[in-house]
Amino acid sequence: MIFKDMAEKKYDFGLVGLGVMGRNFILNVADNGFTAYGNDLDKEKVSALIKEGGDTNKVNATSDATTFVSSLSTPRKIMLLVPAGKVVDIVIESLLPLLDKGDILIDGGNSFFTDTDRREAYLQEKGINFFGSGVSGGAKGARRGPSIMPGGNKEAYQSIKPIFEAVSAKFKGEPCVAYLGPKSAGNYVKMVHNGIEYGMMQLTSEIYDLLRKVGGLNNDELHDVFSTWNQGRLQSFLVEITSQIFKQEDDKGDGRLVDKILDKAKQKGTGKWTSQNAMDLGIPVPTIDIAVSMREISALKEERILADSLYSRPTPTAMDKVELIKMAEEALYFSFISAYAQGLHQLLDASNEYGYELDLAVIAKIWRAGCIIRAELLEDITKAYQADKKLANLLLAPTFVEKVQSTVDSAREVVAYAAKNGVPVPGLSNSLTYFDAYTSEKLPLNLIQAQRDHFGSHTYERTDMEGIFHTEWE
Amino acid sequence: MIFKDMAEKKYDFGLVGLGVMGRNFILNVADNGFTAYGNDLDKEKVSALIKEGGDTNKVNATSDATTFVSSLSTPRKIMLLVPAGKVVDIVIESLLPLLDKGDILIDGGNSFFTDTDRREAYLQEKGINFFGSGVSGGAKGARRGPSIMPGGNKEAYQSIKPIFEAVSAKFKGEPCVAYLGPKSAGNYVKMVHNGIEYGMMQLTSEIYDLLRKVGGLNNDELHDVFSTWNQGRLQSFLVEITSQIFKQEDDKGDGRLVDKILDKAKQKGTGKWTSQNAMDLGIPVPTIDIAVSMREISALKEERILADSLYSRPTPTAMDKVELIKMAEEALYFSFISAYAQGLHQLLDASNEYGYELDLAVIAKIWRAGCIIRAELLEDITKAYQADKKLANLLLAPTFVEKVQSTVDSAREVVAYAAKNGVPVPGLSNSLTYFDAYTSEKLPLNLIQAQRDHFGSHTYERTDMEGIFHTEWE
Repeated sequence: MIFKDMAEKKYDFGLVGLGVMGRNFILNVADNGFTAYGNDLDKEKVSALIKEGGDTNKVNATSDATTFVSSLSTPRKIMLLVPAGKVVDIVIESLLPLLDKGDILIDGGNSFFTDTDRREAYLQEKGINFFGSGVSGGAKGARRGPSIMPGGNKEAYQSIKPIFEAVSAKFKGEPCVAYLGPKSAGNYVKMVHNGIEYGMMQLTSEIYDLLRKVGGLNNDELHDVFSTWNQGRLQSFLVEITSQIFKQEDDKGDGRLVDKILDKAKQKGTGKWTSQNAMDLGIPVPTIDIAVSMREISALKEERILADSLYSRPTPTAMDKVELIKMAEEALYFSFISAYAQGLHQLLDASNEYGYELDLAVIAKIWRAGCIIRAELLEDITKAYQADKKLANLLLAPTFVEKVQSTVDSAREVVAYAAKNGVPVPGLSNSLTYFDAYTSEKLPLNLIQAQRDHFGSHTYERTDMEGIFHTEWE
Repeated sequence: MIFKDMAEKKYDFGLVGLGVMGRNFILNVADNGFTAYGNDLDKEKVSALIKEGGDTNKVNATSDATTFVSSLSTPRKIMLLVPAGKVVDIVIESLLPLLDKGDILIDGGNSFFTDTDRREAYLQEKGINFFGSGVSGGAKGARRGPSIMPGGNKEAYQSIKPIFEAVSAKFKGEPCVAYLGPKSAGNYVKMVHNGIEYGMMQLTSEIYDLLRKVGGLNNDELHDVFSTWNQGRLQSFLVEITSQIFKQEDDKGDGRLVDKILDKAKQKGTGKWTSQNAMDLGIPVPTIDIAVSMREISALKEERILADSLYSRPTPTAMDKVELIKMAEEALYFSFISAYAQGLHQLLDASNEYGYELDLAVIAKIWRAGCIIRAELLEDITKAYQADKKLANLLLAPTFVEKVQSTVDSAREVVAYAAKNGVPVPGLSNSLTYFDAYTSEKLPLNLIQAQRDHFGSHTYERTDMEGIFHTEWE
């Protein structure tokens, strides 16, 4: 009888870690017709989920790992939404004795990709399928439909596919989830997604700075500008929430909240990892690099205050507001493309280096809705990679040449203006110099090769004959 | 008798690895009155050194490790000038059984600093003193006087100090070597030295590009410009060799060699390590980052050729040659300062993080001669850090405010001009935006914190009250 009772209560999906992401994800699973069981050591979180779930036949939870695991139908599908790092290993070790061969563990956090490779190999030996599966969309995305980036064993993915496709965001009816590749492919793609996100956020903040400092726009005007942009080709989650941010009243005082927020930006590491790993691969991602650097500079608030007092800066010369807004829109559009191009280039190279066999069209496709970098542009990017599976760089796609060529002049104007007027726009300038360098047949790095050979006998190649050469410089 | 014979032939200094650097270093040691013994598996290199040394009582060499070790006076002082990586470990293991407690091993290569920490701890257990000691100056520097950056056990350094001080470069009579700190301090300082070197080389190449593309300067004019600059405040090894490079005739054809060198720059990793580690520390070094990125972009020659054919670029508008040269000089001077400021900032933070107890005045001092980044500017930098041991950033030094303020406008003009005219000057623009951001009390990263709190509940700080806040955004 007891056995029968339990058998009747096997749940489709398990989730460890009932923080805001976990709770929202599990409620999303339940909304989509699957039964789900949560697990968290924190009993208050367990109670909260049971209460919010309404019907324990659909959503249940426990603090006891044994009850949790034995309540799931096999092969068990257990997702971890716990902080990246040691906690993931601890949870894996605590679950492992309770699992059966063929069960599936899914790490939904932002784990570093080499950690995922290590865990996947370790668990494979024990017959457990392990997925590193990035989830993007924040708390709201987890609840209403995130973009999900799973990597791992392709066959085992079939078991989780129905649930993931049901809970994920939809773009014109298509689910924003797909099997991306073996091993840490999912975590790697999510890492680069976040790197692009860093770049886009930095770019948005620079445009905001220009509009307020040079155009003199107030928060209502900024709201209107970003709202209008969000109706056009710049349509994107980040532009949308930016427009909302300028409307938000300060609940602790007068005026708008944005003006009271301290300009010291924090980071949790995925942007940094993207830059560091791009350097290991030898792939340039300067817009992402500088976004990381700017968060670092922002943190040096006390030094900045002192430095500001020591130097005089130009007073920005006036610019026609309408013209400025038009130029800013074009510069932001151009720079978003540059940021995507850099991140996708990194994915292409990582795919070769790590054997992920990534399909960039599929990645762009599942980024079209649900995730933080979702944007109108991703529909165009999807088509560009569908048209040419071997596209080396987005800037080389025929459909992007016109988009870029028609907006780059505004990027030039904005960067030039900002440089002269002392407004730091490093994201915009790196997006531009990336383009200018990448599209230059001839760069001056022949001089660097000459210098290296001069002082270190590091040799050089020639333009007119094959081979490796060294000169005894005079 | 045999013992007596051998006792008479004990040499002061041993060196493993008789490549060009090693051979030159050992001849330098001998020139300075010390007897030196070389070791290399390659018998040709051994013979070459013996021949070049002239008198085997002063300079000798062998392929046999036992003979080599037993020929050195104790405590033995053995320097390794072998490729960084596994080779260092292999050489250490091969020497270890032959050494006595108290002997000193010195790794003169560009080993990654954590490798040095590992080796130092390992050898300390065995009673061997290990020094990671960067050597800069290329082959000529090794022969005539390099800058040497040793880190390790402070007491043991006293044994090698007389030799290092004798062989090192001299700046106004002062040796360009000093004990820098414990553990991997020496390798770390050398790594950042190389990062700054990457930045300065990239900056020089961009100025070259502007002068030839915008000013239309030919190689003779470029030689003259850089020669003249080398007489002034830009005096530096890199400016000096750059002027020489423009004069070098092509020994395989007509014209100047620099025009035949392929614009694909190679790298050996120290610049990348500097950038990656700066990110781990959270210290912005955007001029170094972009120098690494530009070497990467330069390597994509085939893609660049294709991309160039797809896009049209502005034809640079004419600029008065004399005015351009004056602006370029100021922009380069400004940017060199920015690059040094970034690297020194990284060293300051690394010193705290890794317990190096670095003295930045001492480091600037030993960089004044011998090394690749030696420059007139380093004398001023030395004085700035001598005047204020706790200087947080070179840009905050009173003596640098005027230097920077008086040249930054030319950097603004050059960057603005290049952005408008499609000449990529990412090193110059990152040097400028680093300055503009670092000297801005107010940055737009309040928007980034708002975005992070909006989509991820990541919280924010406020300008008007203490605490950590979160808002339920509408």
